[in-house]
Amino acid sequence: MTTDIFFQIVTPDEALARLSEHLPDIPRSQPIGLDPALGRVTAAPISSPEDSPAFARSAMDGYAVRAADTFGASESLPAFLTVDGEVPMGATAERPVQPGTAQLIHTGGMLPPQADAVVMVEYTQPVDEASLEVLRPVAPGQHVIQAGEDLAAGDPLLPAGHRLRAQDLGVLAALGITEIHAAVPPVIGVLSSGDEIVPADAAPAPGQVRDVNATTLSALARQAGAEVREYGVAPDDRTELERLTRAALEACDLIVISAGSSVSTRDMTAEVIGSLGQPGVLAHGIAVKPGKPTIVAVADGKPVFGLPGNPVSAMVVFGLVVAPTIRRLLGAGPAGDPPRRKARLTRSLASQTGRIDFVPAVLEQRDDESWATPVLGPSNLIATLVRASGLIRIPLDAGGLAEGAWVDVEPF
Amino acid sequence: MTTDIFFQIVTPDEALARLSEHLPDIPRSQPIGLDPALGRVTAAPISSPEDSPAFARSAMDGYAVRAADTFGASESLPAFLTVDGEVPMGATAERPVQPGTAQLIHTGGMLPPQADAVVMVEYTQPVDEASLEVLRPVAPGQHVIQAGEDLAAGDPLLPAGHRLRAQDLGVLAALGITEIHAAVPPVIGVLSSGDEIVPADAAPAPGQVRDVNATTLSALARQAGAEVREYGVAPDDRTELERLTRAALEACDLIVISAGSSVSTRDMTAEVIGSLGQPGVLAHGIAVKPGKPTIVAVADGKPVFGLPGNPVSAMVVFGLVVAPTIRRLLGAGPAGDPPRRKARLTRSLASQTGRIDFVPAVLEQRDDESWATPVLGPSNLIATLVRASGLIRIPLDAGGLAEGAWVDVEPF
Repeated sequence: MTTDIFFQIVTPDEALARLSEHLPDIPRSQPIGLDPALGRVTAAPISSPEDSPAFARSAMDGYAVRAADTFGASESLPAFLTVDGEVPMGATAERPVQPGTAQLIHTGGMLPPQADAVVMVEYTQPVDEASLEVLRPVAPGQHVIQAGEDLAAGDPLLPAGHRLRAQDLGVLAALGITEIHAAVPPVIGVLSSGDEIVPADAAPAPGQVRDVNATTLSALARQAGAEVREYGVAPDDRTELERLTRAALEACDLIVISAGSSVSTRDMTAEVIGSLGQPGVLAHGIAVKPGKPTIVAVADGKPVFGLPGNPVSAMVVFGLVVAPTIRRLLGAGPAGDPPRRKARLTRSLASQTGRIDFVPAVLEQRDDESWATPVLGPSNLIATLVRASGLIRIPLDAGGLAEGAWVDVEPF
Repeated sequence: MTTDIFFQIVTPDEALARLSEHLPDIPRSQPIGLDPALGRVTAAPISSPEDSPAFARSAMDGYAVRAADTFGASESLPAFLTVDGEVPMGATAERPVQPGTAQLIHTGGMLPPQADAVVMVEYTQPVDEASLEVLRPVAPGQHVIQAGEDLAAGDPLLPAGHRLRAQDLGVLAALGITEIHAAVPPVIGVLSSGDEIVPADAAPAPGQVRDVNATTLSALARQAGAEVREYGVAPDDRTELERLTRAALEACDLIVISAGSSVSTRDMTAEVIGSLGQPGVLAHGIAVKPGKPTIVAVADGKPVFGLPGNPVSAMVVFGLVVAPTIRRLLGAGPAGDPPRRKARLTRSLASQTGRIDFVPAVLEQRDDESWATPVLGPSNLIATLVRASGLIRIPLDAGGLAEGAWVDVEPF
């Protein structure tokens, strides 16, 4: 029930700042195709390899014209043009637009030689099969996307450290880029400790419970862009815990140990984490509830986290310090604040300034407003995990909150 | 440039309501393990197979006692108890707590026979190795999680149609459930049409451009929980488009056709979609900008969507009608509103009541406020897709918005 490691409680941001000093700046990269690239992080900036579009295109359905032929046109005094056929879609527009003529053109069609504008079909009126009236003038360049106007060869497209979205892949495809260099996903070693914990597929004896955290944390790690290796459950035996942890450290880029729930297991876990390598423990305790008994360490360049055994705490801490560290190892910038929903409290909540509080809550819609009902009761109940649909976040500097107050709810 | 299908512009919600009437209510299901279950949708309700915890556990580090032995205890008049060893973690607590004694117990430890409460270590004071003083009384049951208090056998855990989160998997693992029945992901056939479009890996000839939408829509479909089959690009030839579409309809559960950008291609696509099966086209045009020229249809029980060729439009419409239909086919309930960020407009924006407007925007942080700068210019530029970080949503009933106004920004 004692520990010889100095207790040093810091904010999650301070813990991340300390970690960051000891981590490599540039992730390893690998070439991948577009199909598996969704959600992956670019390892290098990507610029446009070519002009897009490669040719001047019509932005509208209408007629390719020489703009000068339409100057002064109006409803009462339309410009009269001879219709000289149609611009083929998907082929070179070869026939020049002669003075006094127009060619039917579709959106995306290639502007023919000597045309410099497109008249929208809405502002034309057919006279007969071979001629039309233009009811409004167009300026040179109007309704035309010039070659390279969208993207010019060499234009920066995506920076390094960018998490690829669906539309980014679409743009890469449009530019003929079918392979990119992505950051290699860090491998995360996940282990649990505690004599009372057995793996999910074991039959617990009396006094034992199955592991919640290995499954939850592995899923969160995959969601954050990492690969996972599970190392099972270490008993409350320092030699065995150290052996398993060192094996994980050897094979992985980051270690997450979810410590058993007793203080003695946590203390032993902290000692093992501190002994793994340099510089060792950077923070012992973070200013978060639940989640205070968290250990943040670096062992010879690899981050090691000791998370509380309480499953809600472990999830909260994962989001605050482990997920950002995975982003850091991927070379991705900070995620920014997570999207939050505004909701009103159905009952008042106590809190303390000087720490961030997270309270699991059920969200429901009443009339046009979202309301959040805190899920109270002992914080280590697993039913809380399935019942809650969000986490109310009470900032570092806020005290308690009254019933009806607006709060920020993060996805859970 | 004409169409013989009746133009019927409806809101996205109305289009979904019409669709829903023609779709099967119960998804196919398959058994899967927990590792691949993240993000999958439950096909049947899951209830707890056992009591959790299976035995009364301590919720604190402290001493297992008979509560009656502590009644009346105070700092000035502590209760004196003999310490009778320690409850082993992860094993059956067999030795009863005799009157006048206490056993050291850790958080999660099994409550020994005849103990009915736990005194927190903070409220005890050691006298010598074999005895201690209790400084506060505890009530029977205090700091104890009773057997089945967290979840009782038969308690509902997760409903059918629930998208599995990391913590849901953790709870299933804790209850020894390592296989569940999940909805089979619908297979989505993605095809593009237009003579000017070539696949991403082709070298476009003059007048041709590479396909953006097949890649973007496939990635969005996977993100929404579907499997994707790509059917390539159909030329502007009704026979060929119909052949490809029917092949897709044969093999897939839902079809998305991104029509070429010209009105004639769109009209041909609409005709083909209308001819595939019963009841045919349910909505031709939705009250959204961009995205109006959208076709929503059902062909013999399978949804078919004709999306605009403009890539921003195609993405907006996918989010409004295709993604909810994928949820529907998975048996999942409505997603609710997407998480939104509040931001202020850096310039005023025109809009029209009677339709939902989406404007791609770049978000930036100025002091403590988020600001959204609309990405203007022709809406069919692909650069917009990579530059924008969000979509400003202007609701159905809103007119224009002034500079500095607060807007909702959806993730993009």
